[in-house]
Parts: sequence; structure tokens; C-alpha cells
Amino acid sequence: MPADRGSDPGRRGSTRRQFLFGGAVAGVGAAAAVGVDYAVNNGGSVAASVPLNGDTVVPFFGNHQAGIDTDAQANGVFIALDLRPEVDRDALRRLMRILSDDAARLTQGEGALADSEPELATTPARLTVTFGFGPGLVARASGAAPTWLRPLPAFGIDRLQPEFGDGDLLMQIASDDPITLAHATRMLLKDSRTFATVRWTQRGFRQAYGSVKPGTTMRNLFGQIDGTTNPVPGTTDFDSVVWIEDGWLAAGTSIVIRRTHMDLDKWDRLDRGGRDQSIGRFHSNGAPLTGTDEFDEPDFDATTSIGFPVIPEFSHLRRARSDDPTERIFRRAYNYDDAPSGDRVSDSGLIFVSFQADVDRQFVPIQRRLDELDLLNEWTTPIGSAVFAVPPGCARGGYVGETLLS
Amino acid sequence: MPADRGSDPGRRGSTRRQFLFGGAVAGVGAAAAVGVDYAVNNGGSVAASVPLNGDTVVPFFGNHQAGIDTDAQANGVFIALDLRPEVDRDALRRLMRILSDDAARLTQGEGALADSEPELATTPARLTVTFGFGPGLVARASGAAPTWLRPLPAFGIDRLQPEFGDGDLLMQIASDDPITLAHATRMLLKDSRTFATVRWTQRGFRQAYGSVKPGTTMRNLFGQIDGTTNPVPGTTDFDSVVWIEDGWLAAGTSIVIRRTHMDLDKWDRLDRGGRDQSIGRFHSNGAPLTGTDEFDEPDFDATTSIGFPVIPEFSHLRRARSDDPTERIFRRAYNYDDAPSGDRVSDSGLIFVSFQADVDRQFVPIQRRLDELDLLNEWTTPIGSAVFAVPPGCARGGYVGETLLS
Repeated sequence: MPADRGSDPGRRGSTRRQFLFGGAVAGVGAAAAVGVDYAVNNGGSVAASVPLNGDTVVPFFGNHQAGIDTDAQANGVFIALDLRPEVDRDALRRLMRILSDDAARLTQGEGALADSEPELATTPARLTVTFGFGPGLVARASGAAPTWLRPLPAFGIDRLQPEFGDGDLLMQIASDDPITLAHATRMLLKDSRTFATVRWTQRGFRQAYGSVKPGTTMRNLFGQIDGTTNPVPGTTDFDSVVWIEDGWLAAGTSIVIRRTHMDLDKWDRLDRGGRDQSIGRFHSNGAPLTGTDEFDEPDFDATTSIGFPVIPEFSHLRRARSDDPTERIFRRAYNYDDAPSGDRVSDSGLIFVSFQADVDRQFVPIQRRLDELDLLNEWTTPIGSAVFAVPPGCARGGYVGETLLS
Repeated sequence: MPADRGSDPGRRGSTRRQFLFGGAVAGVGAAAAVGVDYAVNNGGSVAASVPLNGDTVVPFFGNHQAGIDTDAQANGVFIALDLRPEVDRDALRRLMRILSDDAARLTQGEGALADSEPELATTPARLTVTFGFGPGLVARASGAAPTWLRPLPAFGIDRLQPEFGDGDLLMQIASDDPITLAHATRMLLKDSRTFATVRWTQRGFRQAYGSVKPGTTMRNLFGQIDGTTNPVPGTTDFDSVVWIEDGWLAAGTSIVIRRTHMDLDKWDRLDRGGRDQSIGRFHSNGAPLTGTDEFDEPDFDATTSIGFPVIPEFSHLRRARSDDPTERIFRRAYNYDDAPSGDRVSDSGLIFVSFQADVDRQFVPIQRRLDELDLLNEWTTPIGSAVFAVPPGCARGGYVGETLLS
């Protein structure tokens, strides 16, 4: 029986701040933990430090795959592979055994089998590897695909580029250290080379470890605080939003990846008031327009003195929010900033990433509302879209995908 | 008279460890400094933490530009601009005033003038912006170009791609935080847009802040410890290697940027012994083959029992080292790992960066020896090359380039 990372008593039931601190030190030696205890217990001055992070490991084995309820790392790469034509169910099993073994070692700070640069594995810095299966892989395995495992319905705002869409096997690889990430990515790709080819790669980033206090909500490249209303890992709320309950995907989930170009030049022409209105929150601190603090609950009924809603009908906050409590997702996005071409000075956006138990029931209704009306659509364009089933984790000796492939 | 960052009494004459810790906390509020004092004075357990880094600022104004003697940040972007045809000496002065003002603000955690996302500037995380002038810019300014300000001589190992070569104006922008870096890069490019177009962009990374103890030598993507013999900023040795003494470049330097592709697939086929021999150091800890510690001085006269040199003639260590003490450079490299194309599983290498007072006298002889014989050439290929003059810093109210343009 694999250990359930979600039921770690140090995490469940603790406050968000404690959880995040706990997450940050999990796996650090006792020495560093002493430092954190000191910081937490003495507050103020000494709290303005963080433990050294290179040795911090996130367990690989568990009921759930890591990299979902893991506080998002600073650097992430998303790679979709296409299986080679000759790869059958047996070959898939071999592939997932190999990749799981690689991930189990690399995430714990060891070189992969036959790793020629094991020194580059010794600083995991919370490295995680998360696998997702596309419809093609599930079909190749003769498995039962959930109905939502297909391309999303076409949305009016989409301008999808095939080079950022779909795929058979997803690897989400993330670490706070970019050198570790580059090495792990290479090892996993080397070992998948005889089974699959790279369909697309997306590289992204979030705020660096140590830049800000753990638990600070990220800003995206529009400067918006991004992810305030997320369910909090370790809560029953999170569990009900994210985890699937039965079938070979029990304790697994789904991932939606939408590459969303952000037109920063056009956004720059919008004044502060317009920005606040478009999102329904104050840009300065992320508070809803009816509140003063980032985590204040928005008051959608509040009206201005002349009777207009304080949080506009067209605002992203209102359109993304559903009255139906099942229409919720867990976001874990990364920013991208690639080299621009031509006269542009940036090619930037968001690798939107969400996890949810059921894409059709939870993600699609939200996206449909945003597609119909969301002022942010003026500045954002979905250019890539992919959906994968994320199998559960595995116990030592097992492999990710065994509930489908064994 | 601008303050000379190099003569800060807290840095000069201190040990390397103290220097690095000092550098890391410069600009952090007193609160965090207390934390570090505690860590330093109590050693062991609590030392395994680092201060929060987001608020840390590197001074912009000073005798020298920042980003040279600054302990290298985790994320770096190198951008070469080509001046538009109509840009004359007056326009160049305006451009450098604007960019200097942007850099002065952004590096101190403030938005640029008319910054539409000033919130993305509030976490500088040691942001620096360093400007370099190519031969075209100096000619446009009717300035006296040093003889070394020209493309490097052609080396036999070069396979240069024009899209990574030369340029009129260099911006080296670096921060420990990738979001801050993306924002600063965009602001600087926006403000240069009417004066210049982007010629090339190279993005690189080093070990993240907080991954390892400050001062740990980086490993490159071959797994080699990279930069052991570097002069140490704050020493007279460093000063004599790096800073130019007279003319409009006094207190300035030169930068050589060589994009060097590393064939990781081929490297993987080399065994550990071969790797140690190729570099002349043990891969495991970076010690020379005649020593046990990374910082041991190599013994080039030592021979094996059958009379061969312990550090082979063809090793990178021996070929890079000169008997002439003036043939030295200061390295400040970044790794790159871009999305591979075709069947390759990685497109990786090193953005080799060196600073030296005189390219012809210091850099070229070393590179010539490496070109003639260096076993590492088997696995590395220079694919981009650029040389820029790096003007001195400026005082508040001044601008970088004023010694050439005013």
C-alpha cells in the first residue's frame, strides 16, 4: 500500500502558511528544519529567510502522482510525446516502467540508471515528474478512456496552432533549479527516444524559490495576481475538485494545458482602472473590487451609486466563477517568455494548466462562459490546447500507468 | 564622483565566503541581515538557510557597471540590438539616457518611467543590466574604438551561425527571479524599439538562488565544475584582469560571448576516466588530477609511473592555462537548453561569457591554444561569437556611455 502523501499529518489540517512551510522543508535534513523552527517561532526578523532548497525532495511514490498538490516549482517544462507506430501495450508497459524508474531516482537526487552525469541529479530542489496519457496512448493500451479524454470543444476565441496541441504522452517536469530540470528532462527524453518522438515542448517559469515568502500568489506577465481562489492542497475541498474516485484513474486526475498568448503591447495601452475592471480585482494587491484584501470574498451583488455592479458583468472574476460548486478547477500555471520574432519586443503568455477530476463537468463550463464573454479575451488568445488523463501514483516497485497497463 | 562598488570596505579584503554572503545580503533590510548574522555566527544548523532574496538590490550607479563583479544570478538574457540607420550620435545619447534610467529604476525595484506593470518590478532579486557597445555603435558615435573591438579571428573549430553573432548594442540582463527578468527585458526592449531592432537573443541559466550554498562553483550541462580558477571579485587580481585603465573605457571592460553547442549525446559515450582526462580534473569534485580538492593548484609537472603527464597535454585545464600571468580572463557563463528539433532530445550548451581588459592580449591567446589542441573540442562547437566594449558605470544623473557620447 503506497503512502498517501495527501494524508501526511504534517500537512493535512494545518493552516496554509504552515502547509507551505512544511512543503518547503519536507525532505530537508533536520539541520535546516531547526532553522525554520527558529524562524517560525521567533517571527519578524529571522523569518525573512528560507532553508537551502537544493536537497529538498518531493516523494515520488504515493497514492497520487507528485507535481499536482506540490507547491508549484519555479521552472517547469511540459513535453508531449507521440508514440512510434510499433509501440504496443507491452512496449508501453516497458516505457512506463523505465520512465517511472528514472523519475523515482531523479526526484530523490540520484542519477537515473546509466546516468552519465549523476552529479547533475544531486540537487533535486523539489524536482517532480508527472505523467499524463492522451487518447492515443489509452487506445494503444486498449484501455477505457473517460469521455472527457479528447480535444476540448472548439471555442470562438481559439486560434490553435497544431504545434502546441494534443499528444500521446505528457511529461510535466518541474524543479526550483533549472540545471537539475535540464538534466532530468534530457534523461527522460533519452530513455523515451526509442518509443516516442517529441511533439511539442513548452517551457515556463514562476517566481523563484527564495524571492518571496512561500505561499505568495504568483503574478502573471500582465502583472495580475494569478491563482487566488485555488483550492488548497491538503484540504477535502482540493481532494473533491482534483481526484478521480474510480476506475483505473482512481486517485488520478486530468490535466488541461492551454498555451495562451498575451498581447502585452495592447495590454499596455489599457489604464489601471480598465485593468481593474477587466479582471474584477485591484491590480495593486489582487483584492476583489468589493474588498481590500486578496483573499476577501467578492460581493457580486454590490452596486455603484448609479446602480452598476461594482464587479462588472464582463470581468474575468465574475465570468470564471460559477454558482455551481462542482464547476471548479485547480490551477497550476506557468508563464512563458520566448524570443520574439520580427518587430515584436516579446512573445509572452501563460501556459495555463489546470487539474480537475472531470474536464467536461468542471473545466468546460467555465471555459464556455469565458469564451462567451470575458473582457480579458481582448488581450489573450489560446494558441495551444491539450488534455491528458493523469494516472494515480504508484508504490515502490510499481510504475505509473500500472492500473491501465498491467 | 560615483561610489566605487569595488572599494566597498565590506567586500574588499574579506574572505570569499564572507564576500559572497555579503553580496547576497547587500540591500536586504536590516531584518534579514540579522538572520544572516545569526546563521553565520552559529554555524552548522541554522547556516543551512539563506535570506529571502526578492528585495535584494545591486546598486546601479558606480564606477563600474553592475553585472560583472556581481555574483552571477540564476537567470540571464543576452540581447544584441542593431541600430536603425537613422540613429546618429544625438539619438544614441537619448537612447542610452533612457535605457540607463530604466535600468537604474528597475534594478532598484521600481517600475520604469511609464511602466504599465510596476508590480512586476518590485522583486528585483539582484537584477542587473549591463550594456556593451559593438564596433558599429562606436563608429556611429565617432568614438575611438579599441583595436580589439572587432570580430574575433576565425578559429578552426568555429561553425559560426550569423544569427548568434556580433551586434551594435548588447544588453546583459540577469536576475535570480525569472518573472522580474522577463518584465525588465520587455521594458528595456520597448524603450529601445524606435532606435534599434533585435539581432539576437540568448537565454541562459545557472544554479538557482537557494539551491546550494552561495559561492558553490556551477556545473555545466556536461556535469563539469565550471569556473574554479576565476579571479575573485573584490581582489586586486580581479581588478587587473578585468578593468580597463584609460580612455573613454576607463573603469570599463570588454565582454566576449561565445555560444558553444555541447554534443551531450556524444559526451554520454565517453567514460568517466575519459572525462577526467579531457578536462584534467576529476568530474566528481573538480579537483585537478594531481589534487584532491577543487581549489588545489594543479601540478603540471607530475608524471605517472610510466612517465606520462598526470594532467594530459591535450586536457582543457592545461591548454587553457598560460605561463603568462596577463593571459587571464574572468568567466561568467550561462547554460542554455533550448527546445530540440528533429530526432534530437536536447539542444544544449554554454553561453560562454568572459570579461577582460583587452580581448587581443588576454582572450585570444587562450582561445588560440584551445583551438589548436583541446580534447574538449571533440564535444563542443562554437556557433556564435560577439565582442563588445563595456563602458564604465555612471553616477546618479549620468548615463552609461556618457564617456563616449557626451
